[in-house]
This record gives sequence, structure tokens and C-alpha cells, in this order.
Amino acid sequence: MRGEKRRADILKAALSLFNARGTQPVSTNHIAAELGISVGNLYWHFSDKESIVRDLYAEQQRKSEGVWRPLAEERNAIDLVVAGLRRTFAIAWEYRFLYRELAPLSRADPQLRKLHLACRERRREELVAFQTSLVQLGVLRLPSDESSLARLSDLSWMITLFWLPHVDLRDGTLTKRAVLEGARAVLALYVPYAAKEHVQAFLVALERAGEEA
Amino acid sequence: MRGEKRRADILKAALSLFNARGTQPVSTNHIAAELGISVGNLYWHFSDKESIVRDLYAEQQRKSEGVWRPLAEERNAIDLVVAGLRRTFAIAWEYRFLYRELAPLSRADPQLRKLHLACRERRREELVAFQTSLVQLGVLRLPSDESSLARLSDLSWMITLFWLPHVDLRDGTLTKRAVLEGARAVLALYVPYAAKEHVQAFLVALERAGEEA
Repeated sequence: MRGEKRRADILKAALSLFNARGTQPVSTNHIAAELGISVGNLYWHFSDKESIVRDLYAEQQRKSEGVWRPLAEERNAIDLVVAGLRRTFAIAWEYRFLYRELAPLSRADPQLRKLHLACRERRREELVAFQTSLVQLGVLRLPSDESSLARLSDLSWMITLFWLPHVDLRDGTLTKRAVLEGARAVLALYVPYAAKEHVQAFLVALERAGEEA
Repeated sequence: MRGEKRRADILKAALSLFNARGTQPVSTNHIAAELGISVGNLYWHFSDKESIVRDLYAEQQRKSEGVWRPLAEERNAIDLVVAGLRRTFAIAWEYRFLYRELAPLSRADPQLRKLHLACRERRREELVAFQTSLVQLGVLRLPSDESSLARLSDLSWMITLFWLPHVDLRDGTLTKRAVLEGARAVLALYVPYAAKEHVQAFLVALERAGEEA
């Protein structure tokens, strides 16, 4: 039990350091020092910094799992789109070092790369299944079905992935507020595909998304 | 005159090598060899690889200048949006190495960084001025004027900037067709803001954009 707690503490301290400074300047020594433990103690739990990064990636993926589930009924559909987007960008903020560094990290660590490719596939399938259910329930109405749906999911995927680097480049810094604004950016993509009777509800959600972000 | 021609040939050969292999593995020796000239001859025109990159960046910026000009009348407005987007992504394809590498390149070369920051500011101003004219002409109708316009231009800017890395990551390769598809992705952003009488024209343009890409 104490081992489990220590392990969780190490991940938490590492996440906070990686988010603040990036992974490169943070060593296992820094992480141990942050917790006031010996680096030997840390190595008892993790063989190296890479395995800490992989564990954090797996943690982030566990939280992302099931954010998008196919809907069974039209009721509350738009609220559920908004809730899913909020959750998505809250996770992005929590694990922001991954959104900044995943490309170089997975080039440097083949194990992470393999893990990432498998997870990415599952996340995209979940997203497409969710969006397909919106079409089947008549919340979205797509002109030429499959290709429009593929474009919508491709674009919402892209914005989710690149929103943080974009904000970083644009503002020279990342704030929680600016990251959560990503939810509204993705929500706007749904509007052109909304069935007539839902357009107004999407527009209202779009306005509200901003107020509360 | 022959000096001008040689200089242009060097830039052209460098662009083609950078696009194919990335800037890192390509040396001034490689560029000279590609043209069958001595590296001494190349150095007479360019002091180093960085100055070639900066010249290519400046060339790309000259082509981008004025792609977006404020419209004076409503007629053909949507066609001009489409034409501007096509031009934008055609330039992105032509100078694709810049879209892949601008962040690391400008971190490594302060001169390029300075040039880029100044140009980026002007390009964004042009885009905002163009989009503002669409609002003034009634082609777009924005709910809470300034903030919606800021969001539209921010998001269209973001997709233009990150479309190539996105396609690269998604497909594992860049094709001209996939890059030009970016025009449609940005066009879709305008639809939620289209004035009622223009929605249909935007949707038609959206369908057509795909056929011709």
C-alpha cells in the first residue's frame, strides 16, 4: 500500500515538473528532490525517466477512455457534446507536456510510440462512433454522408491535438482559460452539420461555452 | 543578370531538397552538387544554409502578401474566399518544409525568428481586415461582433498553420491533394457565421472545393 502511494506521488511530482519546465531539463534527481526522497528510492519504482513518461501517458489515456460514447437518444445530445469537449480539454490542460512534446518523445522512445499509435486508434474510433450516433439520431445531418463525417472527425481531432501548440505559439504561454477555449473551437465545427431544428441549440451552446470557460 | 539567375537556381534547388528531406540532412554541399556547381560558387551568393532558408521564407511571404485584401462589394465574395484559401494552401504545399520546421528553425536562427514575427503580424492583420470586410458587406453575420470575429480568424489561422503537420502525422506522408484539402477545412469554419442568404452558397462551395482539390 505504501508502495502504491509512493508511486502515485512520484507520478504526480513528475507531471507537475514536466508541465512547468518540459521533460528535457527535468531529471529523475529533480523529481526525487521535489519529493524529498532518494533517487534510489525512485528507481525502486521506475527504471528511468522514460518509464515515468509512459506511465503518465497511460494515465492520460485511461482518463480519455470513454469520454466519447455513442448516444442512445437525442435528448441532451448537445449538452453531452459540450461536456465531452470540456472533459477533453481539461485532460489536455492536466497533461499539457504531452500535447507539447508527444512527437519528439515518441520519436525518442519506441515503446511510447507503439503505445501511442494503439491508443490513438482507439480514441479515434470512439470519436467516430460518437459522431456517427449523432448522425443516426438526426442531431447532425450530413450532405454526402461518409465523407462529411470523416471530415468532421478529422478536423475536430486535429484541433484537439494542435490547440495547445497553437495557443503556446500565439500567446507565448499556456493558460488554463486559453486551453479550455479549445472546446468552443471544436464545437463551432459541428454547427455547419447541425440539423435545422438543432442549429439554434448549437449556437446557444457556443455562446455559453465561452462565458463559462 | 547571370548572377540573379544563379541565385534563383540555388533557391529553387534548395527548396526542392528541403521539401523532400527536411533542412537538417541537406548541406550547402548537397545543394551545390544538385546544381553541378562548386560550393565556393554557392558561397558567393549565400553565406550559409541559414541565409538560404531566410531567403526562401521571404519568398514565401512575398507570395502570401495580399492573398487577403478587404472586399469592396458583396458580389463574388464567396468565390474570393475560396480562391484565397486555395492560394494559401497552394503556397503551403510549395514551401512545405517551412510549415513542418518553422518552430525549430526560428528557435535556432534569431534573424529568422525576428523576420517571422514581423511577417506573421502583417499576415494576421490582412486576414482580419479581409474577414472584417465580409462582416461589413453582410456576407458574414456575427452574433457578438468582435469576439466572434477574433475566434473565426484565430481558428482559420490555426488550421492554416497546423494543417501540414496534422496531415503528416495522420497519413505518415504529405501529398499535394491532402494539403489542398485544408482549403475546405477552413471554408467549413465560415458556415456557422454565414448570413442566412449566403449559407447555401457556402455549402455549395464546400462541396465543390472537394471535387476540384
